[in-house]
Amino acid sequence: MTNPPNYGSTFHAWRDGAAGVWRDYTHHAFVEGLRSGALPRASFLHYLVQDYVFLVHFSRAWSLAVVKAETLDEMKVCAGTVDALVNHEMALHVRTCAEHGISEDVLFNADEEVANLAYTRFVMDAGLQGDFLDMMAALAPCVMGYGEIGQRLDREGSAGNDYQDWIDTYAGPDYQGLCGAVGAMIDAAVERRVGQNPQTAPRWPQLQARFTKATALEVGFWGMGLNPT
Amino acid sequence: MTNPPNYGSTFHAWRDGAAGVWRDYTHHAFVEGLRSGALPRASFLHYLVQDYVFLVHFSRAWSLAVVKAETLDEMKVCAGTVDALVNHEMALHVRTCAEHGISEDVLFNADEEVANLAYTRFVMDAGLQGDFLDMMAALAPCVMGYGEIGQRLDREGSAGNDYQDWIDTYAGPDYQGLCGAVGAMIDAAVERRVGQNPQTAPRWPQLQARFTKATALEVGFWGMGLNPT
Amino acid sequence: MTNPPNYGSTFHAWRDGAAGVWRDYTHHAFVEGLRSGALPRASFLHYLVQDYVFLVHFSRAWSLAVVKAETLDEMKVCAGTVDALVNHEMALHVRTCAEHGISEDVLFNADEEVANLAYTRFVMDAGLQGDFLDMMAALAPCVMGYGEIGQRLDREGSAGNDYQDWIDTYAGPDYQGLCGAVGAMIDAAVERRVGQNPQTAPRWPQLQARFTKATALEVGFWGMGLNPT
Amino acid sequence: MTNPPNYGSTFHAWRDGAAGVWRDYTHHAFVEGLRSGALPRASFLHYLVQDYVFLVHFSRAWSLAVVKAETLDEMKVCAGTVDALVNHEMALHVRTCAEHGISEDVLFNADEEVANLAYTRFVMDAGLQGDFLDMMAALAPCVMGYGEIGQRLDREGSAGNDYQDWIDTYAGPDYQGLCGAVGAMIDAAVERRVGQNPQTAPRWPQLQARFTKATALEVGFWGMGLNPT
Repeated sequence: MTNPPNYGSTFHAWRDGAAGVWRDYTHHAFVEGLRSGALPRASFLHYLVQDYVFLVHFSRAWSLAVVKAETLDEMKVCAGTVDALVNHEMALHVRTCAEHGISEDVLFNADEEVANLAYTRFVMDAGLQGDFLDMMAALAPCVMGYGEIGQRLDREGSAGNDYQDWIDTYAGPDYQGLCGAVGAMIDAAVERRVGQNPQTAPRWPQLQARFTKATALEVGFWGMGLNPT
Repeated sequence: MTNPPNYGSTFHAWRDGAAGVWRDYTHHAFVEGLRSGALPRASFLHYLVQDYVFLVHFSRAWSLAVVKAETLDEMKVCAGTVDALVNHEMALHVRTCAEHGISEDVLFNADEEVANLAYTRFVMDAGLQGDFLDMMAALAPCVMGYGEIGQRLDREGSAGNDYQDWIDTYAGPDYQGLCGAVGAMIDAAVERRVGQNPQTAPRWPQLQARFTKATALEVGFWGMGLNPT
Repeated sequence: MTNPPNYGSTFHAWRDGAAGVWRDYTHHAFVEGLRSGALPRASFLHYLVQDYVFLVHFSRAWSLAVVKAETLDEMKVCAGTVDALVNHEMALHVRTCAEHGISEDVLFNADEEVANLAYTRFVMDAGLQGDFLDMMAALAPCVMGYGEIGQRLDREGSAGNDYQDWIDTYAGPDYQGLCGAVGAMIDAAVERRVGQNPQTAPRWPQLQARFTKATALEVGFWGMGLNPT
Repeated sequence: MTNPPNYGSTFHAWRDGAAGVWRDYTHHAFVEGLRSGALPRASFLHYLVQDYVFLVHFSRAWSLAVVKAETLDEMKVCAGTVDALVNHEMALHVRTCAEHGISEDVLFNADEEVANLAYTRFVMDAGLQGDFLDMMAALAPCVMGYGEIGQRLDREGSAGNDYQDWIDTYAGPDYQGLCGAVGAMIDAAVERRVGQNPQTAPRWPQLQARFTKATALEVGFWGMGLNPT
């Protein structure tokens, strides 16, 4: 029950390597507020608006991953993720915000906070500086962290939770399927470029460092959600 | 009947600006061979294999356009084009090549000829050097040129043409709809960045130059198709 | 005496457009601490280590500007700035840190704080998303803000100031010459791409927004300096 | 005497791996014409104008390498190469062309031929798609091939050769020193990312393929020189 989700062996190793930071991220007070339902609505809406802007740039980042892909499968998984983000995940935000009188145009033009832009631009630059794997290491904490949080909150969440819609999105089969597909694709991408024992390869510490830094930036993102400016 | 297709006012202006080169491209001997059906099968297959590799990099280029987009509409049209390329246009190539015993894996790893890579890498670099419009000016000749050729060949093609399948793909409503959507999006992108009289703007000659150079590279691509090495 | 420095008309307009944020940046408590000499040494060293890492990525950013340049003059000014950063400005940091027992290797591998990476990655992504001007709007606050601060502190700084070495670096003729050259190059780049009345051009608000956001990120950088974690 | 120059072990392996294509490049009829002095002046001038445009984009490519660098040494060598290209190697072209009445402005705006742009844009895209090593594999054939050709022609060239100025540039200590520095930096970059037995690493074939393709594009560049359009 406390087992990590099965999103592939590379994710498993990166997650272990990030240890405490990973727990800070996946068990953040913001997440616990979603779980118990005690998260103030204002915090959630603040987060949701910022997360919409985040998803705009995250879609741009996954598009850069298509640019960097070297196999047809990598291209298809990354292009499919762009589609899932632009046409599905963002729809949750648009729908929920619309219920609170916030239009998509307002969302698209919301002022982006530092803790928000720091993560997406870090990912973009990982793609500009490194190769496909450098970018995957920076993208994975968001994709898979949300999958893991969704699964846990689905098991542990309070009944009649105000945030059930959010939990269902990330615990649901579409999103979990995405995490599994991305994880399998990353495993193949690692084997193709680094071989079968990637953790002993010279570049592993650099990949782990990107994953851990990106996870720390996610911690900052939740913190921003908790403290609307 | 000889009117150019209606893919927006920007395309119309760029097409006029490229004049003779545009005609060299859209009335190339290779195209006339498709029209009459006299194109040797070996030339067509050679072209098809190279064009598959072209579409791989062209999909990467449209993905870079998503990275460069600045409005939700720009993102959606470009992401939709990636999807159309990866999941539909390339299917024609895979299907036709399979009929001749060429697998998709062979296609993906075919040796890329100079006239082929010159165009896609020119587009990628236009995106790296310039903004979204610089990239659109380099992408448009391929997207819309094929649309225009498809329309004309559908009107003028020989009955019982061996290449009817190719003609149908580009003359069909899906592809023509894509050209219209891309053209409308480019018009909006130009107005947003350059204003309502873009042809008097300082950067217009540069945009025109990118379109014209890209068109010349398309001429080279047909030439490569005619002369299998 | 309170006139802004003469770094060209584009900078002048952007600076006016950023108004209050520009003042928050150039008159930040950190800056006033440098002026009076009251800034705690620990804050300064913390800032200096982070600023070294900043300069590494800022050099990468100016190199991306060379990639995006479209005239020989743009290439030369940007390449010259990379040289000035890598071979001169960073030397101040290395020298000062060495006096306090911090080696260049430690500097290069220092853990980069969020307020630090947010700015440089924002600049990189401005370059990836937009054209040369989008990147200049994001780069200018750092280059010219330091020039303006250097000039003012040189006039207003306390005698026997502990931070005279820092002030001299940015008030000195080399750095001021760099600001002037960059400013003149930006003016020419704007005229070439947008024309002689750039402030009425459709894209001006976007350029101003990039400049203002980058200035706000500089405010965050000083804040980080004041509060070593 | 027929030994390859000592530009490091990675270059040595890549050169061996390219075999026949490397010989086609370094012993091309154009090169033999430089050696004997029999190359028509018109061909040389045509080449020189195209090579000037090539160097503009090659400088942009080395600047992208600074963006992709991950150590201070990598940054310094790449930034130094940009400086050598912009401020020294291009000067030979400007000087020689000026003697024939061709101004630098004409050079900068010369129409770029397909065989020319194919190589530089291939390099840029290698940088966008891959990491620092992918880019080095694409850059190396030009830098080191010219070094090797310069050395050989210096030994074997006819006395009183009309092209002695060209030969001296590439055989001279400045250029040879650059080749040695780049080669040593590449060796360190390979060890850092792939380890001490890079030729057994999964990504080696891909690196070799980029080097070999880039070499083939250099063959095309000489061919263009021989056949002014």
